[in-house]
Amino acid sequence: MRFVTERDALPTELRLALPGLVADHLDGGPRPVLEARMGLVLDLVRANVAAGGGPFAAALFEVADGSLVSAGVNMVVASHMPVAHAEVLAIALAGARLGTFDLSARGPIELVTSCEPCAMCLGALPWAGVRRLVSGARDVDARRAGFDEGDKPADWARKLRRRGIEVIGDVAREEAAGLLRAYVDTGGLIYNGRPG
Amino acid sequence: MRFVTERDALPTELRLALPGLVADHLDGGPRPVLEARMGLVLDLVRANVAAGGGPFAAALFEVADGSLVSAGVNMVVASHMPVAHAEVLAIALAGARLGTFDLSARGPIELVTSCEPCAMCLGALPWAGVRRLVSGARDVDARRAGFDEGDKPADWARKLRRRGIEVIGDVAREEAAGLLRAYVDTGGLIYNGRPG
Repeated sequence: MRFVTERDALPTELRLALPGLVADHLDGGPRPVLEARMGLVLDLVRANVAAGGGPFAAALFEVADGSLVSAGVNMVVASHMPVAHAEVLAIALAGARLGTFDLSARGPIELVTSCEPCAMCLGALPWAGVRRLVSGARDVDARRAGFDEGDKPADWARKLRRRGIEVIGDVAREEAAGLLRAYVDTGGLIYNGRPG
Repeated sequence: MRFVTERDALPTELRLALPGLVADHLDGGPRPVLEARMGLVLDLVRANVAAGGGPFAAALFEVADGSLVSAGVNMVVASHMPVAHAEVLAIALAGARLGTFDLSARGPIELVTSCEPCAMCLGALPWAGVRRLVSGARDVDARRAGFDEGDKPADWARKLRRRGIEVIGDVAREEAAGLLRAYVDTGGLIYNGRPG
């Protein structure tokens, strides 16, 4: 069965905008306290769910003083793009903003994410030049809620550390995991592409 | 050191267009022969390098008759987005075109890539609903040329197969690996974000 036939419909341009409810929360002021940075990220989760999106958010901050560089939320369903995870969008937006694909070229950058990254987002970290990964909920919290986190190397945290990336977990884990459970309990769509 | 200070500069929209030289090669007609699909992908590598981009390309085809659904090239340097790998762009463009995040929802989809995917792109495959992965050069060919492929699960091909994704390697491997070597031999930029 062919289902795409128009030559001139071949897509050559990507466009994607964060939901207005999420953009409204972005405030670039410094957040020197780690819990405040995670607090913003969890607020972005709530805003994205309110906008009809998935229960995941991430943001990049300058390590120096916790200034917000960029943020992303899970837009898989809204954008129809299976790669539109929060971390991927935050990293892409930061690169466009900073004008360099090595996000720490002008000073070290930290990624704060509401949940330990999936296999794809984890794989993006070395390319992005991120110097510190901070997460809220654990992989197992996402899996319990029904999300597929993919096939990660068993010792992924050690592998990141060997690359010079600091790894900090369990920041506001209970609150972050609670957002995943609440999403599922209220009938939120689990949107992994399924084989077979 | 703070290097981003403007609140109103916080980015909320992504835009990215394939290079004109690459878009000129896209032709949606059926390509029932696997080598012809890989041939298109390797032509896209050449076009992207001619446009100043990285030596990687990928395309999605309908399994049924080899019709082109979407294509991507490595745009890390041009876009400043460390996640702008060929596979990620092809998958994102296909989702936007098909109007669904499960790319095989309307019929099985195959990803043909000029080189075995890096850890990030490999991680994207289960989310994307791709049913078959076809690659040219091997991971080791990319590493020999100087590219960092990331930390993949050692048995990634078996893990993909267990998810119902067929894995076919070494299609035009010599030609594909030659394009990587030629890129480096002519002074092409190796653009991994480096820690430390």
